[in-house]
Amino acid sequence: MCRWAAYLGEAVFLEDIVTAPCHSLIAQSHCAQEAKSPTNGDGFGLAWYGDRPEPGLYRDILPAWSDPNLKSLCRQIKSGLFLAHVRASTGGATSRMNCHPFISGRWSFMHNGQIGGFEKIRRALENSLSDAAFDQREGATDSELFFLMMTEEDLAGDPQGAVSRAISRVIDASRRGGFEPALKLTAAFSDGQSLYAVRYTSDGHAPTLYTSAFPNGGGRCVVSEPFDRDGSDWQAIPPSSFVTIGRDGMSIRPFVPAAAKLALAV
Amino acid sequence: MCRWAAYLGEAVFLEDIVTAPCHSLIAQSHCAQEAKSPTNGDGFGLAWYGDRPEPGLYRDILPAWSDPNLKSLCRQIKSGLFLAHVRASTGGATSRMNCHPFISGRWSFMHNGQIGGFEKIRRALENSLSDAAFDQREGATDSELFFLMMTEEDLAGDPQGAVSRAISRVIDASRRGGFEPALKLTAAFSDGQSLYAVRYTSDGHAPTLYTSAFPNGGGRCVVSEPFDRDGSDWQAIPPSSFVTIGRDGMSIRPFVPAAAKLALAV
Amino acid sequence: MCRWAAYLGEAVFLEDIVTAPCHSLIAQSHCAQEAKSPTNGDGFGLAWYGDRPEPGLYRDILPAWSDPNLKSLCRQIKSGLFLAHVRASTGGATSRMNCHPFISGRWSFMHNGQIGGFEKIRRALENSLSDAAFDQREGATDSELFFLMMTEEDLAGDPQGAVSRAISRVIDASRRGGFEPALKLTAAFSDGQSLYAVRYTSDGHAPTLYTSAFPNGGGRCVVSEPFDRDGSDWQAIPPSSFVTIGRDGMSIRPFVPAAAKLALAV
Amino acid sequence: MCRWAAYLGEAVFLEDIVTAPCHSLIAQSHCAQEAKSPTNGDGFGLAWYGDRPEPGLYRDILPAWSDPNLKSLCRQIKSGLFLAHVRASTGGATSRMNCHPFISGRWSFMHNGQIGGFEKIRRALENSLSDAAFDQREGATDSELFFLMMTEEDLAGDPQGAVSRAISRVIDASRRGGFEPALKLTAAFSDGQSLYAVRYTSDGHAPTLYTSAFPNGGGRCVVSEPFDRDGSDWQAIPPSSFVTIGRDGMSIRPFVPAAAKLALAV
Repeated sequence: MCRWAAYLGEAVFLEDIVTAPCHSLIAQSHCAQEAKSPTNGDGFGLAWYGDRPEPGLYRDILPAWSDPNLKSLCRQIKSGLFLAHVRASTGGATSRMNCHPFISGRWSFMHNGQIGGFEKIRRALENSLSDAAFDQREGATDSELFFLMMTEEDLAGDPQGAVSRAISRVIDASRRGGFEPALKLTAAFSDGQSLYAVRYTSDGHAPTLYTSAFPNGGGRCVVSEPFDRDGSDWQAIPPSSFVTIGRDGMSIRPFVPAAAKLALAV
Repeated sequence: MCRWAAYLGEAVFLEDIVTAPCHSLIAQSHCAQEAKSPTNGDGFGLAWYGDRPEPGLYRDILPAWSDPNLKSLCRQIKSGLFLAHVRASTGGATSRMNCHPFISGRWSFMHNGQIGGFEKIRRALENSLSDAAFDQREGATDSELFFLMMTEEDLAGDPQGAVSRAISRVIDASRRGGFEPALKLTAAFSDGQSLYAVRYTSDGHAPTLYTSAFPNGGGRCVVSEPFDRDGSDWQAIPPSSFVTIGRDGMSIRPFVPAAAKLALAV
Repeated sequence: MCRWAAYLGEAVFLEDIVTAPCHSLIAQSHCAQEAKSPTNGDGFGLAWYGDRPEPGLYRDILPAWSDPNLKSLCRQIKSGLFLAHVRASTGGATSRMNCHPFISGRWSFMHNGQIGGFEKIRRALENSLSDAAFDQREGATDSELFFLMMTEEDLAGDPQGAVSRAISRVIDASRRGGFEPALKLTAAFSDGQSLYAVRYTSDGHAPTLYTSAFPNGGGRCVVSEPFDRDGSDWQAIPPSSFVTIGRDGMSIRPFVPAAAKLALAV
Repeated sequence: MCRWAAYLGEAVFLEDIVTAPCHSLIAQSHCAQEAKSPTNGDGFGLAWYGDRPEPGLYRDILPAWSDPNLKSLCRQIKSGLFLAHVRASTGGATSRMNCHPFISGRWSFMHNGQIGGFEKIRRALENSLSDAAFDQREGATDSELFFLMMTEEDLAGDPQGAVSRAISRVIDASRRGGFEPALKLTAAFSDGQSLYAVRYTSDGHAPTLYTSAFPNGGGRCVVSEPFDRDGSDWQAIPPSSFVTIGRDGMSIRPFVPAAAKLALAV
């Protein structure tokens, strides 16, 4: 389980959200309060949008709390749309390629949760990828693979549907693998224009998800766990929700996965 | 504050102490129970004695729990005398040069605790070093500097006295700096023959220190915190103690610092 | 293209081969003389056999010339059978999982060369792996994949044949991919008992391979490039050769790849 | 010896200078043509000025050619004033704290060259620092120490004089140490407004220094070695020169070190 925070609004220094608040993402890397594990020390990452359509990406394997580069970058870089993540591995090795966010063209993606039984269906899911998506795979995590499946499911045309259909691929593969699906997913992603988030579980409790207006910059945050307790008015997003944040406001819709568009190639 | 473990006895695989026990040092890097901070993720290190008089040294800045090299080295290397450490920084940056153990010739040293007000007396203490010891300084920690002071205080001839006199140098510098000494020290060190440990504080509570016979290998461990709860018979070392473990047994003596042999050059 | 050295004989300190000679592997990481690229700074690795049937493994992404851990480990560890490698990437990212040697059970493997057109046949080759071998894949290199194919081709029973059949799988996949095979392979591997090496190319010039008796320890080295110019009597291994070094001597046999035992699953 | 490049002008993407040109700084990290050592693989760093008075700082110990973060940062970040450096160590360990640029408040500094006999005068020079400057020392290089001396020599009021007086301190310390000064210095530094460079040696050949107008952005580069051969009109700066580049043009003045303002405390 991991912790993450995302922002869309007027350009602000990344540090306003990532490092400065009392219970900032960096603080959460050391002692998260609503996560299964308090320590999120298995690497970190930033994706931010600036003057180019595709995002910048900075990821490293140190704990976020001890990386002076991260601190300086967050202090210097201003962005109106960014994703930040601190990782607690649920299996994969600690390597840069396994750190979130993942990017593909204009898209960025980060995740808290896991695909239960991933080791049993990893190969089937990788084989379900097109050659183009397969060639983009750099690491070994369930999260990156889930994102690559999303990119194949009309992500640009129907972001909510893409998540839904990627989930269906996981559910199908789990059942074919002979076990009940056990997917936990609290994810955020963006194309550089809008910020999307989803809270879903196929069983039991979905990882937490919150949103709040951000005082400076008139923007909005969506986070796995609030980064301050005062001054903000955090709204808990209910399970099975899909959040769309644009320049003109936020919508929260019910989220129920559909059937997979592509059959699994087995 | 940090966690550490040391062993002297028949050669055993390092993993028997460092990675295998249920509450091993690696487990303590993630969730120590008797430390001020449960997370000791700011690097780690090993010093072990083998076929040469001087020890081997392996240190890195990843959290110990996520380093596959550490796991493999501990699984392969057998040694009859070694020191292992996981770090929680009290100030210095996360760099290899700031990771314990530190070595000098045949000697190795590691530490849990801190020199209170170090930033105010660091320069005076560094200036008190001989040119030879100054040239060995690689990092910026209080621990390394304390060890270098020990090497100048007849460490080979009188190990207990060397610790005592290094403490006196810290106490003197603190008083000259205009503040009450605040030194916490639970340290282990070795010359490749014997294993020494000390538990001391100039004020309040000294960090914990334990020892136990080790079932495999007929040796003895000294640790900042027990690495298992069953099967071993851990003995808490009282504050103000100096422990000497040799091939022929262990002695625990009272430890009270003496006056500094060298005046501080100010 | 990379540089590597392997040894079998009486136990010697790794440094006798890896760091001490005038043109040691470490020196070659900075300025190799017979390699396509003089700099081999994209990580390094060691696999050595000691008291366990499976080898120890130490790999990191720094240039070999600047890693103090490597220097200390080579100075301390004695082994009668080890493989050491410095990497110059031909494509894959600089990550620990992409550094040689690779290990699987008792086996270790390292490689200089490349599978030409790998990006076009990577997926077909990965799909040809059994689930068991697929699950062992950690990185993204052609070399690791080649080794995993070897482990499926009766490596224990017929080491030379295993290389031969893995090559055939590459050749078949290349032809099905619509291009002429372009495989360059100078590799060493071991099961902890014998040391094997192969020099082969499907076209043009095979990377160099040398062997020599090693004065200390009465053993034998096999290397991509001699590590000293005086005192040793280096023998160039001809292209299309398979070398077997055991406790009782060395054999050099002609090496010609056979047809693949398993058809590629496409 | 190292390679570096600096720019002042309209804001451009860092990649326009650091990674994109045919003989870019990244290319020079692998095969510099005018340096003593062709490989500059002992870490790298960037300092750039943006929306704050103090610069951002990104340094890491990988070779510049293999760091995907560096590539992404250079592709995203635009700046009208920045310094970039690839390191070939002349002694100090490969650590982030030993990588250039160094920063202090609004100032940034990077260096190609070395203080000959540094190990013999390091302590005297460190002792010559004020407590405030001493506390800013993080690493162990001669370059960082030289920069800290500059900050004490009225750097803000008289940049050229500050370099001159820092050189005098080195020269004095060398003579007191009983050897002829052997200082080589091609350095660039900035306060966020102007860009300064100096080319000087106390003996023999000064490392190279070039400048050129930069086609995009209407700015100007100063470099240790040209990053392209066509399209730019590189001007070699003569030895014993001090270069000042401002928003309104460039001046090149003779540079001869003066007597030290502060006597060395010995």
